[in-house]
Amino acid sequence: MISEKSYVLGTKKSTIRTIFEFGRKRAAEVGEENVFDFSIGNPNVPAPEKVKEAIIDILNEVDSVALHGYTVAPGDPQVRETIARSINRRFGTSFTGKNLFMTAGAAAAITICFKALTEDDVHNEFITFAPYFPEYKCFVEAMGSELKVVPANTADFQIQFDKFKEMLTPDTKAVIVNSPNNPSGVVYSEDTIKKLAEILSEKEKEFGHPIFIISDEPYRELVYGGITVPYIPKYYKNTLVCYSWSKSLSLPGERIGYIVVPDEVADFERVYGGIAGAARVLTHVNASSLFQRVVARCVDEPSNIAAYERNGNLLYNGLVEAGFTCQKPQGAFYLFPKALEDDDYAFCERAKKYDLLLVPGSDFGCPGYFRAAYCIKQETIEKSIPAFKKLAAEYGK
Amino acid sequence: MISEKSYVLGTKKSTIRTIFEFGRKRAAEVGEENVFDFSIGNPNVPAPEKVKEAIIDILNEVDSVALHGYTVAPGDPQVRETIARSINRRFGTSFTGKNLFMTAGAAAAITICFKALTEDDVHNEFITFAPYFPEYKCFVEAMGSELKVVPANTADFQIQFDKFKEMLTPDTKAVIVNSPNNPSGVVYSEDTIKKLAEILSEKEKEFGHPIFIISDEPYRELVYGGITVPYIPKYYKNTLVCYSWSKSLSLPGERIGYIVVPDEVADFERVYGGIAGAARVLTHVNASSLFQRVVARCVDEPSNIAAYERNGNLLYNGLVEAGFTCQKPQGAFYLFPKALEDDDYAFCERAKKYDLLLVPGSDFGCPGYFRAAYCIKQETIEKSIPAFKKLAAEYGK
Repeated sequence: MISEKSYVLGTKKSTIRTIFEFGRKRAAEVGEENVFDFSIGNPNVPAPEKVKEAIIDILNEVDSVALHGYTVAPGDPQVRETIARSINRRFGTSFTGKNLFMTAGAAAAITICFKALTEDDVHNEFITFAPYFPEYKCFVEAMGSELKVVPANTADFQIQFDKFKEMLTPDTKAVIVNSPNNPSGVVYSEDTIKKLAEILSEKEKEFGHPIFIISDEPYRELVYGGITVPYIPKYYKNTLVCYSWSKSLSLPGERIGYIVVPDEVADFERVYGGIAGAARVLTHVNASSLFQRVVARCVDEPSNIAAYERNGNLLYNGLVEAGFTCQKPQGAFYLFPKALEDDDYAFCERAKKYDLLLVPGSDFGCPGYFRAAYCIKQETIEKSIPAFKKLAAEYGK
Repeated sequence: MISEKSYVLGTKKSTIRTIFEFGRKRAAEVGEENVFDFSIGNPNVPAPEKVKEAIIDILNEVDSVALHGYTVAPGDPQVRETIARSINRRFGTSFTGKNLFMTAGAAAAITICFKALTEDDVHNEFITFAPYFPEYKCFVEAMGSELKVVPANTADFQIQFDKFKEMLTPDTKAVIVNSPNNPSGVVYSEDTIKKLAEILSEKEKEFGHPIFIISDEPYRELVYGGITVPYIPKYYKNTLVCYSWSKSLSLPGERIGYIVVPDEVADFERVYGGIAGAARVLTHVNASSLFQRVVARCVDEPSNIAAYERNGNLLYNGLVEAGFTCQKPQGAFYLFPKALEDDDYAFCERAKKYDLLLVPGSDFGCPGYFRAAYCIKQETIEKSIPAFKKLAAEYGK
């Protein structure tokens, strides 16, 4: 009577959900302030004041029927033009509004791309790199395609190119890149992107058809210590950029983002048309007409990254002091340290004794590690360090 | 390289789009005020002032992180509770928040239902009644199912039950009901709903499995002349109600609506779980967190139907005077008169000579008729009547 797949996807408790519920229970027992919940990757800094101002200004300036009416499916033309110009200023590109398709956040953006690139009645493959955001698998499979995962390069969380090369086949439609990365907190270097582009260009020639990069970059603005995130369309022409303001403007619940389709992609008209059709049947009729206008007005508003950067460094230093090995925080709001035993589930279970709520790396396709999200109160991080030290001491650190 | 189906769906010009473009061209030639565009079904009354007030109050009262953060996938619990209570007050039901699933409008709501009810690896059928909203076909087919259409009952635009009965098979998963109807403007009577419920109950017994009614009711509040729209869950237990505030609060661009899953449906837990899973893979992560709160605050706000009612009567009287036959306006903001020749495309083409922009009934599965949307300026309707008369005169009326 009901799709079994949908039922399982709608009811199976994720690890993060189970941890969350444990955290609620413990908070009731020992007090909220004594539970160190590093499990949830949700912005904890408020949206910039400018967002509120923009909403109020728009309500006062724009006629209600125009403001709350449907926009054309790709999004309000003026909004798209404004965003294109902002991208151009920052990355030296030359997009116009017609290169943008507004979406309900990055999740919708990437899934629209998966749907558009999934050819009818053939086997389609997408590739991503561990550690990776586990929803990719649900989204790709729901569109009728297969997701292949390149094992993690745990030396520095860049890419294992030898393994990657072996996985590319004539059925490969696209490669999903997520940098700054959830969960590793690492940014792919310019060398990594160049190498990736080189391999894909070779394989495109070999297979005689395009292989797209889908660049899922909701964390693009959240980078620390002067790191630069290479803008992939400048390195590889068949790139679709999927962006969201969920993290940069702390608006995850408002679902607002976009897809960039550069003029340079193979057969722009077919790709953009396919995206429009995919959005239509996934019933993403148009992205919120109010929030399209809001982000256009806030397009050059800087993200409030100071709090994240302070938290990231604080947690990193504490973990290293406690004896953990971990990449320095580069971007997003995650650290991905090595667990202190091979079995990351057992490790995270043991961490609960100290009310440390951590997510096993296996959930992201990378066993032996764990994710700690540091988009939480600074005091929580400060208070958690002694708990991490006690946990490490159990392992003789 | 690109899904052919997605490409076609994203690029094929709809009849309405073609008419719209003709209208823009004519407006440039003869002036906006001399083009009588009845093609677009888009609210032309502003959102109630209360919507703006609610947005500003919420911005001032609710903490930014909570306000713009993710809600749980089914929607904010307090919002759902508030809406459930409002439905209960109006329809004598006893829903709670757990019966609601907030969605990005009615299009998302119905497609989530189609996806949830499309069982894996079998043939699935959905049935609807002509005249019908043509997107149903795209949405149902994109989820992998077949849409069957019961021919129109042009006597009164209720249901042809004999034809309907023949179409029900063991593969029937659900029946889509849209009342007040786009495009006919007719409301299904209590007798119609009772008869529908009776037939479906019999067939459920015969086939040994539930057959759902998916009640797509974005026009529920737009009814005239004291007509009552029967609330289908009171007549048939396996009903999923799909609602949107697009029309009632003039918020189509903000994409906000819900699905009601009554406790009484067969296996509530599986149905609600399937809906959650379907929403997840269609990447409807959560309905706009701001607009969830806005509609909760405006839940008992009356729709501004006076202008639509005036327009509907004006157009109806004018058309009848000109010699057209047509059902009286009952609901939504459409009239669906008989064309003055069998070929409705030819008729609508001829209407263009008088700058009357009408949509052929064939687009809604009902040849020989045409749709006129009266959610436009009153002056436009007034000025259009002589044009309709001239058109009718061509046919000897």
